[in-house]
Amino acid sequence: MNNQKRIRDYGVRIGTLPTGPLNAITDVAGVLVGHATISEGAVRTGVTAVLPHSGNLFRDKLMAACHVINGFGKTAGTIQIEELGTIETPLILTNTLSVGIAFDAVVQHMLAANADIGITAGTVSPLIAECNDGFLNDIRGGHVQHRHVHEAIAAASEQFTEGAAGAGTGMSCYGLKGGIGSASRQFPLDGKLYTLGALVLANFGLIEDLTIAGRNIGPAIQTIEAAKTRQKEQGSIIVILATDAPANERQLKRLCRRAVAGIARTGSFIANGSGDVVIAFTTANRISHDEKRAIVPQAMLTDSQINPLFRAVVDSSEEAILNALITAEAMTGRDGNERRCLAEYQHLLY
Amino acid sequence: MNNQKRIRDYGVRIGTLPTGPLNAITDVAGVLVGHATISEGAVRTGVTAVLPHSGNLFRDKLMAACHVINGFGKTAGTIQIEELGTIETPLILTNTLSVGIAFDAVVQHMLAANADIGITAGTVSPLIAECNDGFLNDIRGGHVQHRHVHEAIAAASEQFTEGAAGAGTGMSCYGLKGGIGSASRQFPLDGKLYTLGALVLANFGLIEDLTIAGRNIGPAIQTIEAAKTRQKEQGSIIVILATDAPANERQLKRLCRRAVAGIARTGSFIANGSGDVVIAFTTANRISHDEKRAIVPQAMLTDSQINPLFRAVVDSSEEAILNALITAEAMTGRDGNERRCLAEYQHLLY
Amino acid sequence: MNNQKRIRDYGVRIGTLPTGPLNAITDVAGVLVGHATISEGAVRTGVTAVLPHSGNLFRDKLMAACHVINGFGKTAGTIQIEELGTIETPLILTNTLSVGIAFDAVVQHMLAANADIGITAGTVSPLIAECNDGFLNDIRGGHVQHRHVHEAIAAASEQFTEGAAGAGTGMSCYGLKGGIGSASRQFPLDGKLYTLGALVLANFGLIEDLTIAGRNIGPAIQTIEAAKTRQKEQGSIIVILATDAPANERQLKRLCRRAVAGIARTGSFIANGSGDVVIAFTTANRISHDEKRAIVPQAMLTDSQINPLFRAVVDSSEEAILNALITAEAMTGRDGNERRCLAEYQHLLY
Amino acid sequence: MNNQKRIRDYGVRIGTLPTGPLNAITDVAGVLVGHATISEGAVRTGVTAVLPHSGNLFRDKLMAACHVINGFGKTAGTIQIEELGTIETPLILTNTLSVGIAFDAVVQHMLAANADIGITAGTVSPLIAECNDGFLNDIRGGHVQHRHVHEAIAAASEQFTEGAAGAGTGMSCYGLKGGIGSASRQFPLDGKLYTLGALVLANFGLIEDLTIAGRNIGPAIQTIEAAKTRQKEQGSIIVILATDAPANERQLKRLCRRAVAGIARTGSFIANGSGDVVIAFTTANRISHDEKRAIVPQAMLTDSQINPLFRAVVDSSEEAILNALITAEAMTGRDGNERRCLAEYQHLLY
Repeated sequence: MNNQKRIRDYGVRIGTLPTGPLNAITDVAGVLVGHATISEGAVRTGVTAVLPHSGNLFRDKLMAACHVINGFGKTAGTIQIEELGTIETPLILTNTLSVGIAFDAVVQHMLAANADIGITAGTVSPLIAECNDGFLNDIRGGHVQHRHVHEAIAAASEQFTEGAAGAGTGMSCYGLKGGIGSASRQFPLDGKLYTLGALVLANFGLIEDLTIAGRNIGPAIQTIEAAKTRQKEQGSIIVILATDAPANERQLKRLCRRAVAGIARTGSFIANGSGDVVIAFTTANRISHDEKRAIVPQAMLTDSQINPLFRAVVDSSEEAILNALITAEAMTGRDGNERRCLAEYQHLLY
Repeated sequence: MNNQKRIRDYGVRIGTLPTGPLNAITDVAGVLVGHATISEGAVRTGVTAVLPHSGNLFRDKLMAACHVINGFGKTAGTIQIEELGTIETPLILTNTLSVGIAFDAVVQHMLAANADIGITAGTVSPLIAECNDGFLNDIRGGHVQHRHVHEAIAAASEQFTEGAAGAGTGMSCYGLKGGIGSASRQFPLDGKLYTLGALVLANFGLIEDLTIAGRNIGPAIQTIEAAKTRQKEQGSIIVILATDAPANERQLKRLCRRAVAGIARTGSFIANGSGDVVIAFTTANRISHDEKRAIVPQAMLTDSQINPLFRAVVDSSEEAILNALITAEAMTGRDGNERRCLAEYQHLLY
Repeated sequence: MNNQKRIRDYGVRIGTLPTGPLNAITDVAGVLVGHATISEGAVRTGVTAVLPHSGNLFRDKLMAACHVINGFGKTAGTIQIEELGTIETPLILTNTLSVGIAFDAVVQHMLAANADIGITAGTVSPLIAECNDGFLNDIRGGHVQHRHVHEAIAAASEQFTEGAAGAGTGMSCYGLKGGIGSASRQFPLDGKLYTLGALVLANFGLIEDLTIAGRNIGPAIQTIEAAKTRQKEQGSIIVILATDAPANERQLKRLCRRAVAGIARTGSFIANGSGDVVIAFTTANRISHDEKRAIVPQAMLTDSQINPLFRAVVDSSEEAILNALITAEAMTGRDGNERRCLAEYQHLLY
Repeated sequence: MNNQKRIRDYGVRIGTLPTGPLNAITDVAGVLVGHATISEGAVRTGVTAVLPHSGNLFRDKLMAACHVINGFGKTAGTIQIEELGTIETPLILTNTLSVGIAFDAVVQHMLAANADIGITAGTVSPLIAECNDGFLNDIRGGHVQHRHVHEAIAAASEQFTEGAAGAGTGMSCYGLKGGIGSASRQFPLDGKLYTLGALVLANFGLIEDLTIAGRNIGPAIQTIEAAKTRQKEQGSIIVILATDAPANERQLKRLCRRAVAGIARTGSFIANGSGDVVIAFTTANRISHDEKRAIVPQAMLTDSQINPLFRAVVDSSEEAILNALITAEAMTGRDGNERRCLAEYQHLLY
């Protein structure tokens, strides 16, 4: 997408399933991604919005689930997904200290579009996920403002930038520059082709663990010195999974729980300081806020045929991380802290 | 406290354990509660802060746990408690659409007190719980501001107002005026007296279910008409439990899971629209952010002797709800919506 | 049922929803209950089988969920329900030390009916729940044998005995004789009447806490002396919920999580030693083991209309416990230990 | 151990942490492992017992936790570990349809050693984990008997056989012969050396996914034909983690949740049919059944220093799986079904 050179362009193949046309989460029809990037000097942060569909999400909720791999994180909105099995707002990714602003901005956005919220319709539950970009970004400065959230939502489209864009702007991954990455896979069910896509905000891992397609190239990368300037691992990864296959909430949660295998394949041992959260939704099962019927039909998978989706989750999560790494460019940020980028070490990929 | 007439003053007794001196969560030494109340015309909302101790909570975290009874809610901060077993900020209660502002205000508060957050110390995880006061309050107006959160924290003391104060200002409970309530219990362990206290933000229930000390007085209350003006149940309850007994995280979670019995005794069937969350902490097990040792001693309970704490949870949760109801005064708010109060029906208590 | 005098026959009413014709779990069409009772001298135990439907459960699984209120228990089979959302065998209740025998007997039963298990069809997951009847029963003697499990399954019918029958034979509840109890409720959805039924194996609680329809009659019961002979609370309660309303797994879990309110209303504070487990299934959503389609239609509830089911869970759980207590007769068992029965104190019910 | 040639003997190194002297779970002082192997013709099954310590486990329980990676399984005993945080019996591994017999055999074993169980001490909670060996074993025949469980417990020692022994006898892994494997790692905490060991019962995976030290060698292995004879993946893996580092229950659960990364590194995508369960215990925190004190001291880790244990979990889980694969010999079992072994393809390891 956007003419960036992605991991496949370096000959790296992950798994055997075919990708969608864009090899991105937006291969799932209706899903859109937008960024607001704030990047200059010591300010390296931003917002990424994932729109599960382009309509009114509060009125037409999508069936969803989430899973916490490691809960050293501040993601807001998970308990309602767990209880009600739906998402009803755009998903917002940003830096860890801006969760409050993003929450408030989503509330504003939803109030503007739904006059009944807070009057007759009860409340709305924003979903805000985050990573800590404090190594490169002046995170204490609070540079994300309400308008950035609104901009990211407004900018949402099928094509989007990977790497150091939006919420990924200031993120680090395996001691290199990290950020936003995406990938997708396709598979047949009952003779029809379905798609599952992943989008990650990758900000985790230690340089020595970096593994690409099974090869632990981390130790060979000469940015180990730079990596040492960061005393502790404090990274995180957010994984968003979208599919047009009609899984139910339990099955979507099963999907979420496979993402960790994709993460592990890139070398991570799921360190203490990581806030690793997975959110999955299907565009196939909609829940109308204004539903009048007490009983509604939905579709679900036969669990004995779910394995292609599990493979799609693992492979697309792994490839999305690699896409984040390979598309992100080197950056110098707060206090002169710098991150080199994987593309500089592309010779190690072959 | 504060010379308000509480449920005991009407002769209602809940359980057999003795109360602490204040019969409030602040009977647990070090715990403080403060309000910022915004109450005029259509604006009926506010903030309540619970300080687990009066020192720097980020540096001296307390062992904690949480439990979601029903997750139709927006409480932020639960996943880190679950993972790390600590709270590291004041607990903030407010209205459901102000969670973002409260989150951001707590971040500001913590940054001001800890220069290393975002630089070398990683991030901080605010804990913001909420209920929906939209029946009485112009919740769409966004009247809670950063300063209200800071005021509530600054106002924290052992003595605090119950009923329509702070976050409780605009809350409803069983079709009557609800709000903040508290209670405590004491029990011996190894020959020494310990205390457990509960504080609730009570905003749940349907009038016909209201039950006090086993008597279902709801149907007799003549505000059923008024209650009918609210089409749907959409309430919630937040329960905060504090103890000076040295439970560990697993045991604190066990405490959390008993609060539902106290709620049920007041008549609730834990309705769909309720966001019911319980948070428990102990002041006996502190976790230093700057701990140098890899292995640290802590104290825990012998589970076979935990029952007095379970009783204390159930009884103090039930009594805290009743205190919220009986201390709250009748209120007219947004669009002329009104709530009568339990005190008007005090003759039904005898 | 079976001409036993039940709690309604004493004028006690729980809630406002109407009951089904039998006021039992078997009001849900297709659900059957059978007992094998072993009761003589020091041997006071048995087996109760709940058949979700009378066909081949392995081939036609029912959608299901479970919830652990307090996990001091040995119930086997919960993790597969959690993962796959189905039950595929009869549900077996027995004493805590006989879980292994019951598991093995169910395996035998399922192998006999399904020649492909262990060859081409993988495995089968028995669901065995238990309480500890060791106060009245020589539980160390291991008196439950494979044939008792098979007898209970074979005996399953719409009419069944409550109180000291089957798995309930040697159980105690609130210091009195406990055992099996049941109740049901009906409610309309989309203009059609649906049923939810509860069956409990009641073996929990301390005499002083016993509360019937809000009245704490425990202290007045003069068997307090007898109750004291048992030093510790070690009880448990198993609650099985069945409905013909088409809830999905998430919603069935929500049902499970309401049972605790019914238990709490009878006076329990959910003590440490109790292994309290809830299992719910719907007869409306069947999952064929031999399903060829990858995508199948199912029905689910609109969550905003789920409250009648929640009420039905709470009320039928509470009434089922009371039915267990009121139908059980006094018993003397192992080492001369005895339990009086609630019926002896029926004057306290009025 | 036992002079078997293990994965390190082929030059494969997993991670950088040093191993314990045996490179096995029994490097954790006090932990013992024993097998009862039943292997002839169509009968290929058995029992493996892991003794957390060699004393009376009911009287001196060890702090423990568990985690379900994928719950298509029948493991019994997890809910009490979750609630009480202890194990109180030997851990038994066997085939999936023999869980009942194993449960019953453990009950017998515990009753014999503890005269108070079922009289004054309540009950005991066996922990039985399983995989499905039905491809090689006549699992319908029910060949595991009580005595095999007792034999495995009696045989427990520091040295034990890996591969096709005990519960591993008939297991398959990545389309090859699987079974029991183990490994350990050491790391310093506060200047003292601690050990963490893993034992796996490996019975999962599809041949095409097999990956060793990052190299996906599965496709090159010419037993793909044989693997195809098994239509569906139906495998499982049980991981038992032991450490002498004093983690608490929450932290032990965090350890459990890292095992999936070790599994993923061997190529698995955590398929639908797999019952993947992890159990962890520490020998450093004992809980006396007869504790008189209400408050007891325990030790815990500082979470910010927990990463070495996380690495130890991932690396030892991965290596334990590889040890199971490389030590297991080819086998022909039920209906002439056969499994080749990894050692036949050792040339692919270099």
